[in-house]
Amino acid sequence: MPMAALENLPKIAVVLGDPAGIGPELGARLLAEPENLNKAVVYVLADRSEVEEAASSAGVSVPLSDEPQAGHAVLRSDDSAPAQRVAVGEVSEAAGARVMHQLRRALAMARAGEIDGIVFTPLNKTSLHMAGMHEEDELRWFAKELDFSGTTSELNILDKLWTARVTSHVSISNVASGVTADNVDKAIQLLHDVLHDSGIDEPRIGVAALNPHAGENGLFGREEIDEIKPGIERAQQRGIDALGPFPSDTIFLARDRFDGIVTQYHDQGQVAMKLLGFDGGVTVQGGLPVLIATPAHGTAFDLVGTGKASLTSTQNAYDIAVAVATRRINEPSAA
Amino acid sequence: MPMAALENLPKIAVVLGDPAGIGPELGARLLAEPENLNKAVVYVLADRSEVEEAASSAGVSVPLSDEPQAGHAVLRSDDSAPAQRVAVGEVSEAAGARVMHQLRRALAMARAGEIDGIVFTPLNKTSLHMAGMHEEDELRWFAKELDFSGTTSELNILDKLWTARVTSHVSISNVASGVTADNVDKAIQLLHDVLHDSGIDEPRIGVAALNPHAGENGLFGREEIDEIKPGIERAQQRGIDALGPFPSDTIFLARDRFDGIVTQYHDQGQVAMKLLGFDGGVTVQGGLPVLIATPAHGTAFDLVGTGKASLTSTQNAYDIAVAVATRRINEPSAA
Repeated sequence: MPMAALENLPKIAVVLGDPAGIGPELGARLLAEPENLNKAVVYVLADRSEVEEAASSAGVSVPLSDEPQAGHAVLRSDDSAPAQRVAVGEVSEAAGARVMHQLRRALAMARAGEIDGIVFTPLNKTSLHMAGMHEEDELRWFAKELDFSGTTSELNILDKLWTARVTSHVSISNVASGVTADNVDKAIQLLHDVLHDSGIDEPRIGVAALNPHAGENGLFGREEIDEIKPGIERAQQRGIDALGPFPSDTIFLARDRFDGIVTQYHDQGQVAMKLLGFDGGVTVQGGLPVLIATPAHGTAFDLVGTGKASLTSTQNAYDIAVAVATRRINEPSAA
Repeated sequence: MPMAALENLPKIAVVLGDPAGIGPELGARLLAEPENLNKAVVYVLADRSEVEEAASSAGVSVPLSDEPQAGHAVLRSDDSAPAQRVAVGEVSEAAGARVMHQLRRALAMARAGEIDGIVFTPLNKTSLHMAGMHEEDELRWFAKELDFSGTTSELNILDKLWTARVTSHVSISNVASGVTADNVDKAIQLLHDVLHDSGIDEPRIGVAALNPHAGENGLFGREEIDEIKPGIERAQQRGIDALGPFPSDTIFLARDRFDGIVTQYHDQGQVAMKLLGFDGGVTVQGGLPVLIATPAHGTAFDLVGTGKASLTSTQNAYDIAVAVATRRINEPSAA
């Protein structure tokens, strides 16, 4: 496509992920694709030496500029890289601290209205934990850093299928109490909105049941009757195309009928998504004021520097961030 | 293979399933395969008119005899077919009652030591319910009819992978309380024993965690630490090759490493198994004194008489019943 005027493009911050893993080289390969730099104004949050080292490791060249310029990524460095390079291929407090620093800078840009989306390459949970991230997941950390208390949901995206969750990183014994009509309704709305913003005008949403066989008419579990169905009906009354609840062991067989599926708990969706190949998918930190997307796979310490890591998930994460940010800029009322 | 002497063969009762569905024609096609009648002494529990009608509908011929005879199925009729034929392609009390009658006759033969296994073709839960089966599942009905109070588990088998469950048809809110070290240990033992009897001398068993990310070291749920790991260790101390717990969203990706997987709840296993093609699989009513196997798919009212129903699952169910019964006869101490 012809390049749009710079001022009409969405602004995306790219964070290079955990420096001990494949994140930096994936980030460099993403930014080395000329087409990517025509879709958005990209701010890369790193020191120049880090970008250059990542590009060198990946065998690519990343065109950097100080200010927005066609075909270049804007370097936003605060010259904060530690003097001693983070050890590659292992967890460390230093690695976690380095990426948290850049994520915080990206969030500050979002709060200041300077960017419309954030893409980061893989993090390492253990290193983040060593560096002081003690939330159950990154989504809660992002929400806290943004002082955001609204509804959020980790979204998992594989090919054209998006999933949202009513409950997430909680024990199975605490799942049922989180499955309320209100929470079901909110998860449907959240998924509807982001699917709309991704380019689907009237997204079709399927909702999973909680209990086996959808509770078999209340025989084992009444949440389908008392909470999930009423939650779906509320969303329907606002014009959302939501259907269900469907037993969770068959809803994924009918996935072609839906743009998005709302699951009631983590493994209900993730057992299916991982079998369908989700390691090649994308995770979106859904519901936050800024669109944040990342590849679903991890830091793959064993692949660092081998050139074998696939760019597909990172590219897809970037494309989702650009698509959603573009639509939100052009149709701000939908957000 | 050359036919073994009749007296050395296992004895298998075949029940034709719900008369309104594809069960009778699948049963007839199974019994029309000469090889099947050489692997076991087969007792078909039906009226002669029912077998003949099923065979005619399937376009096959079933060789019947009154007593065990090479190449024949033994007809065990009590001339009880209702004068008015059960309506095909719909649920009814009459259909449910008819198959329950024959299942009870099979169980009576098992109690009397006359048979070593039972294979039935698909049932219809609604028709069974109309006819008075009010248990949560067929397994509990079988256990009740057999006055059996030991550990049972529905086993789901797809290709070479077997799964057992610690909890089954219970609400999600009641799952965690059923995940005890004792129940985990018993499910592992049950799966180990039936896998052994199916022909695997030292079955490799993987055990799923309960909570997302296996509880993340107790961060969301302690059942992995307090119950599942101790349950696995008890089984290991008896020499069983059991490993885990593994997060449920990755254990099925590693399924080639295991002969059997123990899941903690119904949908954890069934989401995966159905995506992997379980409708072509087999269900075994595990733990009962008699081996009972059935195809995993349903009565498929829309396929009755079309010849399109696949025999694969029924054949696999039969082969499993024959294999297990054969080993139990030859190595009775293992049972």
